[in-house]
Amino acid sequence: MAPISRTGSEFRAVRRDALRALLHEAELDALLVTDLLNIRYLTGFTGSNAALLLHAGGDAGTVFCTDGRYTTQAAAEVPDLEHILDRASAAALLAHAAADPGRYGQTGFESQYVSVEQHVAYQETAGHVRLARAPGLVEQLRVIKDEAEVEALRQACAAADRALAGLIEHGGLRPGRTEREVARELESRMLDHGSEGPSFATIVAAGANSAIPHHRPTGTPLAAGDFVKLDFGATVDGYHSDMTRTLVLGEPAGWQREIYDLVRHAQAAGRAAVYPGADVAAVDKAARDVIAEAGRGEEFAHGLGHGVGLQIHEAPSLAATAAGTLSAGMAVTVEPGVYLAGRGGVRIEDTLVVREGTPELLTLSTKELVVV
Amino acid sequence: MAPISRTGSEFRAVRRDALRALLHEAELDALLVTDLLNIRYLTGFTGSNAALLLHAGGDAGTVFCTDGRYTTQAAAEVPDLEHILDRASAAALLAHAAADPGRYGQTGFESQYVSVEQHVAYQETAGHVRLARAPGLVEQLRVIKDEAEVEALRQACAAADRALAGLIEHGGLRPGRTEREVARELESRMLDHGSEGPSFATIVAAGANSAIPHHRPTGTPLAAGDFVKLDFGATVDGYHSDMTRTLVLGEPAGWQREIYDLVRHAQAAGRAAVYPGADVAAVDKAARDVIAEAGRGEEFAHGLGHGVGLQIHEAPSLAATAAGTLSAGMAVTVEPGVYLAGRGGVRIEDTLVVREGTPELLTLSTKELVVV
Repeated sequence: MAPISRTGSEFRAVRRDALRALLHEAELDALLVTDLLNIRYLTGFTGSNAALLLHAGGDAGTVFCTDGRYTTQAAAEVPDLEHILDRASAAALLAHAAADPGRYGQTGFESQYVSVEQHVAYQETAGHVRLARAPGLVEQLRVIKDEAEVEALRQACAAADRALAGLIEHGGLRPGRTEREVARELESRMLDHGSEGPSFATIVAAGANSAIPHHRPTGTPLAAGDFVKLDFGATVDGYHSDMTRTLVLGEPAGWQREIYDLVRHAQAAGRAAVYPGADVAAVDKAARDVIAEAGRGEEFAHGLGHGVGLQIHEAPSLAATAAGTLSAGMAVTVEPGVYLAGRGGVRIEDTLVVREGTPELLTLSTKELVVV
Repeated sequence: MAPISRTGSEFRAVRRDALRALLHEAELDALLVTDLLNIRYLTGFTGSNAALLLHAGGDAGTVFCTDGRYTTQAAAEVPDLEHILDRASAAALLAHAAADPGRYGQTGFESQYVSVEQHVAYQETAGHVRLARAPGLVEQLRVIKDEAEVEALRQACAAADRALAGLIEHGGLRPGRTEREVARELESRMLDHGSEGPSFATIVAAGANSAIPHHRPTGTPLAAGDFVKLDFGATVDGYHSDMTRTLVLGEPAGWQREIYDLVRHAQAAGRAAVYPGADVAAVDKAARDVIAEAGRGEEFAHGLGHGVGLQIHEAPSLAATAAGTLSAGMAVTVEPGVYLAGRGGVRIEDTLVVREGTPELLTLSTKELVVV
């Protein structure tokens, strides 16, 4: 990879300017951003209370608000914007806008997050400022990852890869250990490799439990002959990795080899269908057809994948019922599975970035059948 | 304690009936419950997608909806209500109501959670059903814990107490260990004692870091003479415990004894002010006055406490600016602190239940100054 030449602060300034282009299109003077992930994306702030009034004209009319607990943190994380300190962060920024209705006349708000009750309160505070529903503007930008975001995803995926390698190498998968113990070791190893925490509740599913797509780890001990399905991820700079590998304890039976190879081929077909301009339903279909042609379509009852980033599940969705096309810079998972109720199941999942030509694979653990 | 004579299912039926009394007061035929914690409280369901249409007349007109991933889980967890399976759970229940506007004519919705965009969609689906803003009805019930809830809190607090005892007993607090290592050991020990996971991001703050009220654990090693502030909790059945203890590594200095004793007295004064009918601001004042009289009022810059339950922070708030009075059955924290910037700080926090007479203390670890 070429080195990243911009600082985090510069990346965020570029994101704010990209958002301004969307505000101009929507004929908005400003946007009140209240979703904490969107605020993190635009400002770098990682605290638990904040709002941002982003002016379409530039950072000069843009104001960031958090409360007194975060004075020092906000100064360090958001050095480039004007600050207000107030616990009622959104209300404080609306009052700021209401004091200058000429400048903030038409102000959008994140109507997909703002509750009906909050909206009633907003209207009481906004005075002569007109509040306009403006759902999903920041999300529209977030769906395409810039290089700072891809680098964070890369590090999160590397932490997960290293954790799995360490788990296997140090005999962490052996008969008698419980699913819960394995989950804790995986999470602990991810922390050792720089993860800020698991990107979702780690799934470890042994034997018949591996046939349950979203099984939660229990006290069930691993046993010889079991499939062990591991679905887990790390977070770095708030970005989530997502990977599933299914291993087998001891020599695999014929049916295990059969469904493993089937899922592996379906997963490869899905990855091969990922390129800029591809229809998201067609990506799902590419993998699903492989499984359906083997007569196992009924046993793959979930979507093929989803976007990842500051959230573990975000746009785009790769599913039969989803609409839209892929663009370069989107980060998605590809995760087909085949689940035989009462016997066991296999899922293989990678996180990858859509690129011109071949996608960039971020999860690098082998997809050959690993026998431990 | 007297044994709990009701089953979980019976407790939830009682909660639904209590909610019906509130619906009658508000002249609502039904309530569309979409908050997952409120749904868990009313039905026992622990999955990630659900909605509940609770009819004021009884469970006969009450319908629960989740999606196909949860068919088995919903049958086990919610055996006593009619089910619909649909991924768009709220929309499916509104369509169900719209088909019988005579029965669901005036239906409330949780307007403190439902977004402006969701509300627009609700109105399109609701047909002749009138949707009424009905914020906070379930929360009004949740603020008073029934005996099943107190028992879960008790177990969560016991897991935290045992984890701390194990940490100290096995030499987990010693010079050279990092804050992060201590946090991980505490969390791991809580899991060993039945916790489903930490109830919030564990705080371990050593030396000067202990003066930061909400410090996140770093690679800072513990050193002789340090205060070590531990703020952590476990979850059991979804209920959160919350406890802070501050220990000292080696012989305490004079200033350490001084502020420790001060906080201990303030905390005892706060607990003594907790009884049914007490004004929440007066509880805060009881503890704050002790610290202010010692000339350290400026160094206690946060509220005294908060309610705990299915959320780590819920009503009531115990703070100078809060309003309302305590009732028997509320579960609250009492957690004064004194923080000397650059030197170190002390916070002592318990979780307790408001009872007639003396509150029931759920966190039982000693509040004497522990020297390790």
